[in-house]
Amino acid sequence: MRYLFVARYIIKFGGTSVGNIDRIQHAAGIVAELTNSGHEIAVVVSAMAGMTNQLVAYANALSTEYTPEHDVVTTSGEQITAGLMALALQKRGLSAQSFLAWQIAIETDANHGNAKIINIPSEQLETCFSRGIIPVVAGFQGLNQNNRITTLGRGGSDTTAVALASAVNADSCYIYTDVEGVYTADPRIVPNAQKIDVISYPEMLALAMHGAKVLHARCVELGMLRKVDLHVLSSFVLATGTHISTTESTGGINGIVHSLNEVHICLTGTADQLQHVQNTLNSANIFIDMATQRAPETLHFTINKADIEHAKSIFAELKSTLSFDILAIDPNIVKISIVGAGINHDLTIEALVHKVLAAQQINVHLASRSDIKLSLVIAHDQMTKAMGILHDALITNDQNQPLNREN
Amino acid sequence: MRYLFVARYIIKFGGTSVGNIDRIQHAAGIVAELTNSGHEIAVVVSAMAGMTNQLVAYANALSTEYTPEHDVVTTSGEQITAGLMALALQKRGLSAQSFLAWQIAIETDANHGNAKIINIPSEQLETCFSRGIIPVVAGFQGLNQNNRITTLGRGGSDTTAVALASAVNADSCYIYTDVEGVYTADPRIVPNAQKIDVISYPEMLALAMHGAKVLHARCVELGMLRKVDLHVLSSFVLATGTHISTTESTGGINGIVHSLNEVHICLTGTADQLQHVQNTLNSANIFIDMATQRAPETLHFTINKADIEHAKSIFAELKSTLSFDILAIDPNIVKISIVGAGINHDLTIEALVHKVLAAQQINVHLASRSDIKLSLVIAHDQMTKAMGILHDALITNDQNQPLNREN
Repeated sequence: MRYLFVARYIIKFGGTSVGNIDRIQHAAGIVAELTNSGHEIAVVVSAMAGMTNQLVAYANALSTEYTPEHDVVTTSGEQITAGLMALALQKRGLSAQSFLAWQIAIETDANHGNAKIINIPSEQLETCFSRGIIPVVAGFQGLNQNNRITTLGRGGSDTTAVALASAVNADSCYIYTDVEGVYTADPRIVPNAQKIDVISYPEMLALAMHGAKVLHARCVELGMLRKVDLHVLSSFVLATGTHISTTESTGGINGIVHSLNEVHICLTGTADQLQHVQNTLNSANIFIDMATQRAPETLHFTINKADIEHAKSIFAELKSTLSFDILAIDPNIVKISIVGAGINHDLTIEALVHKVLAAQQINVHLASRSDIKLSLVIAHDQMTKAMGILHDALITNDQNQPLNREN
Repeated sequence: MRYLFVARYIIKFGGTSVGNIDRIQHAAGIVAELTNSGHEIAVVVSAMAGMTNQLVAYANALSTEYTPEHDVVTTSGEQITAGLMALALQKRGLSAQSFLAWQIAIETDANHGNAKIINIPSEQLETCFSRGIIPVVAGFQGLNQNNRITTLGRGGSDTTAVALASAVNADSCYIYTDVEGVYTADPRIVPNAQKIDVISYPEMLALAMHGAKVLHARCVELGMLRKVDLHVLSSFVLATGTHISTTESTGGINGIVHSLNEVHICLTGTADQLQHVQNTLNSANIFIDMATQRAPETLHFTINKADIEHAKSIFAELKSTLSFDILAIDPNIVKISIVGAGINHDLTIEALVHKVLAAQQINVHLASRSDIKLSLVIAHDQMTKAMGILHDALITNDQNQPLNREN
């Protein structure tokens, strides 16, 4: 903060938070309240809910292969909301001006559909702040060095917000969405999941990478790198949301996430041959996760479901020269990841996990550990039961876990 | 033409011609055929039919007063179509690239919602032509000197096309729409109206200014000024359309148009007082048309329906100091305009008009004449009858009128 009680905030609204004219006016009300309290605000907007899907459907009807012109089509959605949000703020008597990526200019690489932000010049935004104008920035879009429109990929508007927060040295970045924050588990699967009040960046990144849907991993990664004070909260209810803090972890277990994107593969053969298969998959950009040599000549691992056909064709090719066998290709699995600094600090957690699962006859196919994450592969049809048991054992019943302890 | 059979064309598609993915693909087929014949083509696109109305409705829900942010919202429509058209052309194996106004850049004045094009740099388009790339330009939009998006007003994409044709010295500009061309009258009112094959610019301008809906007056005006060889035709049927020629008039009567936008006003008072009323309306930017002093102390004229409440308040104010009376404010009228160089060349036409109307007891409230136009005000409920009679007398039955004579 530069003066007492006067801060600079980036306020980002997701698709449902600007899903129709009423929601846009409601969101403008949130901005107006902060502005009228004397704060400097820049707004970032997503496309109205459903609009991007419609635009993607139009473009895909003409070309399923992603091209630079897809970006021209899809960025229209955020342009519309940027103009409408500026109008909604003006209607409240505030001074506001929309900015598209090329007007700022938000420079990205040329990786259309999944571009990375290289630089955001802050001059025009600073001019707005100094003149009392609220800049309303279209999220998701960028500009490459050839003056062509790019997009930042899924969750791209969150990334725009965090990048802007860093560019203008904002005190905080608020991501308004349709849920109240990040939860200890998906509430549709674990009904007694709780909102996380505060979480560190490394733990939030692990949640985002392994199944939490609220924030995309790239946005969290950027926020961590640039040390952006980040909040995720609902534009539908008045509540504080989840604070992703740049300070250290609160310890314990933060959350349990699940992912249905993996396939479990089990191969058998000599160690040399299995190593060769692994290397070939890696060279084909197929990401191998949770690799485990359980018996000396048996290799277990997971790959992304999207890569399965590609992997099968590689296996077929390799089998003409190597003598390995495919014991299983099992898509009916779920990867459950338990996230928290406690994984590393508290050695009883891993034992507790295996104990409570075994007590319910839930078989762990694969397990892997990092500093702050323990991932397990189990059968898909045991997912709800396993998530509930683990959540009860590690979060609900653990009075020492870090929930609701802002420090 | 620069080489035999190789020409440069601007091809513009209106909203219904790009109204859905199928229509866009069909339009791309028209472009592909011309490109594959060796011609250099640049495409201009409108928003998909209905899209602009939806976007205007969104913006108006937040601000009925027109602001620069309205332009940000509405230009998204053409951006979407530009990207989709480029994709549709690529799908046909052609090289194509979309251009938004800021990418070219199409410079306009700062009159948001009704901006005028100041300059179109041709370098990037020339580069496309020389590399065999089809530029697909979003119509309707421009960029003012402050880097803000502007729009060109109703029919703006036609204006973009004609301005581009001039900027790159195109051999012709083709406006593809959902009708087969310009008609001798509105076929919904005069069923035996015929498509005009060729018409001069001054006559087309008179038709556009006084009721023809196919082309907007500003586009025609610009085409006349810049000597653009212009064609209006249908993307739905294979036919030659209407050629707006930069050469001289073909004589005779070209068409009969009607307008329901006027109100007939009749005032009585001394000549001085009536002159003062007229001057006051003029100063208030209320356009007075067809002013006629029929009796010495009676003034008839028409104004635009949109100005009627404004005019009434001016009358009320003036009556506190001047002693004039309002004999009539009649909105139930139609202005019928007969257009053609024959008005000036053939003195029997005006007499024939009054004769055939009088024979059917159709009372002419007001009449005014210019070189190529004769306008009449009659009761609205006599419109269809009058249009039919006049069309029969001046066009259908006149073997000397210029229809179907391309020269």
